[in-house]
Amino acid sequence: MPAIFDIQPLPRILERALQSRIDQKTKPLGALGQLETLALRIGLIRNSLTPSLDKPCIIVFAGDHGIAAAGVSAYPQTVTAQMVANFAAGGAAINVFARQHRIDLRIVDAGVNADLSALPGLIHAGIGKGTANFLEQPAMTLEQGETALGRGAELVQQQYDRGCNCIGFGEMGIGNTSSAALIMHCLTGLPLERCIGRGTGLDDAQLHHKFEILKQALTCHPGLTGATEVLATFGGFEIAMMAGAYLKAAELRMLIAVDGFIACSALLAAAKIYPAVLDYCVFSHMSGEQGHRALLEHLNAEPLLNLDMRLGEGSGIALAYPLLRSAVSFLNEMASFEQAGVDPKR
Amino acid sequence: MPAIFDIQPLPRILERALQSRIDQKTKPLGALGQLETLALRIGLIRNSLTPSLDKPCIIVFAGDHGIAAAGVSAYPQTVTAQMVANFAAGGAAINVFARQHRIDLRIVDAGVNADLSALPGLIHAGIGKGTANFLEQPAMTLEQGETALGRGAELVQQQYDRGCNCIGFGEMGIGNTSSAALIMHCLTGLPLERCIGRGTGLDDAQLHHKFEILKQALTCHPGLTGATEVLATFGGFEIAMMAGAYLKAAELRMLIAVDGFIACSALLAAAKIYPAVLDYCVFSHMSGEQGHRALLEHLNAEPLLNLDMRLGEGSGIALAYPLLRSAVSFLNEMASFEQAGVDPKR
Repeated sequence: MPAIFDIQPLPRILERALQSRIDQKTKPLGALGQLETLALRIGLIRNSLTPSLDKPCIIVFAGDHGIAAAGVSAYPQTVTAQMVANFAAGGAAINVFARQHRIDLRIVDAGVNADLSALPGLIHAGIGKGTANFLEQPAMTLEQGETALGRGAELVQQQYDRGCNCIGFGEMGIGNTSSAALIMHCLTGLPLERCIGRGTGLDDAQLHHKFEILKQALTCHPGLTGATEVLATFGGFEIAMMAGAYLKAAELRMLIAVDGFIACSALLAAAKIYPAVLDYCVFSHMSGEQGHRALLEHLNAEPLLNLDMRLGEGSGIALAYPLLRSAVSFLNEMASFEQAGVDPKR
Repeated sequence: MPAIFDIQPLPRILERALQSRIDQKTKPLGALGQLETLALRIGLIRNSLTPSLDKPCIIVFAGDHGIAAAGVSAYPQTVTAQMVANFAAGGAAINVFARQHRIDLRIVDAGVNADLSALPGLIHAGIGKGTANFLEQPAMTLEQGETALGRGAELVQQQYDRGCNCIGFGEMGIGNTSSAALIMHCLTGLPLERCIGRGTGLDDAQLHHKFEILKQALTCHPGLTGATEVLATFGGFEIAMMAGAYLKAAELRMLIAVDGFIACSALLAAAKIYPAVLDYCVFSHMSGEQGHRALLEHLNAEPLLNLDMRLGEGSGIALAYPLLRSAVSFLNEMASFEQAGVDPKR
């Protein structure tokens, strides 16, 4: 039975009061640019004129993909488990950036093809030892897809229960730009060519091979309907869990910071089920992965950063997080024209 | 007698070793995008494989402009002094952002048209009560221009002496986008139309008026030669001090974070005197002020942020500062493939 979420459209009752508060700060009208839009959005999501970001958290979901066997990635599948060990040891980029900004980091085995039972601090939520190869059969069953949505939701609920109101989701999974590209293609209708990219660093020949493989995969699964079915067919476990995580976070009216290409493909699926999830999202960055720009445009999203990054792991979220804090800080701490005794525009 | 600076081109001896260190981190090659370029640049500037950012500081230079009398700004000249008081009281955007990132903030009276002697913590370096109106005479004498360069340099030396190795310069001065536009026009040769913008928020008619005024100003001062003369003719005191500050910071091999349009016009002047100053610069953001994009292109600069901000005060630097720290942190803290036992690309 499908998970059901109660996601309300963004409450806009404070919109005028928030805008007025922003406009009275000691700066020319609009001079903080996108930071002002962000402050307004955060105020609306938190439904407060003095919002705060409490116990920020990034959950990284890791999963393996049967399609990796078809040679769609520049790295072997073993790297997923090795990188999860790197996360657990604190040596990956997301560890460094999360430490820098004191963001809580949770690493989840969503379905890695390895025995990770010895890794300290890992959350064991794996649904299988990697998905099936979607050239042969759906990546997972519909039931597994629903289970993944539900587990993602549970993990968000746990963060909420400990006082977190600001959350983001990262991923790790060799082969998962292939999943993301197919999800994007199926749910946006954009040509497959616009949805695929070099992932971890394919050369031209490898990229062409990836395209051919994914085109073939589409012919294996004609007539897909609905986001859950698309998610289950092309996977992966980490993407489906992220989709459930977005939905629960929106239900709980948390501020959601969205990472790059794969994270956006999961959000796209979530938004096809409950469009109002997008109201609670801010977009951390435009990835260097080809396809992300078009996906952001489809989601009507304005990313904060554009640093040509393509790492995943939630790294874009961690780097954009200080901007979220700056938006909240100027709203709460800057003096108004009246408070500071500054003459207004003539 | 003109100030003399001993600015060495960037030492590149560590370039290969730094790039190799970056490439061995546990991420696909180049996956941290512009952050990798930044880490390389910082390593070169600090001439270290393990650079650190010590006692970061932003110096905000404030000055008034005689040209304000010609109605080139949306705000009256009184606002410069009022905003300096706001800085001193901790209520402006730059105060909020500097506090957030624990950046030392120094506010300098470079020549404000008001008695600011009662303001706590202000550095009194004023060269006059605002510049002269350059429709009537040069904004300042050449000697005043040289004095300003020297005072900017002294203030940087003081920060260096207390252990600061990472610095940026902000400004406040009603009318100073007019100065900056003229400096840009004279030193880049780009048409005046491409150098002017709405500043603090001019409407179309006011923008047209500004253009006419600045065109007239150019006819008043034909045959200008050299950056110091241009600086002295079109001012202001805060821009000239910033130019000197850049030069001293480069001489001391500090990492220089560059703010928006006016800050870049001061850097342009500095770079016309000593081109190697640019080696020590990273560019914090692309401002919403029209003219900044072309100026950045002229300086061959890639800004980190593009948030449509146009506030000055060093606000772009403060917002980009966490990215500088992230670049340093990933270089110093991320595990290598070998350390983490992660398989390399196949």
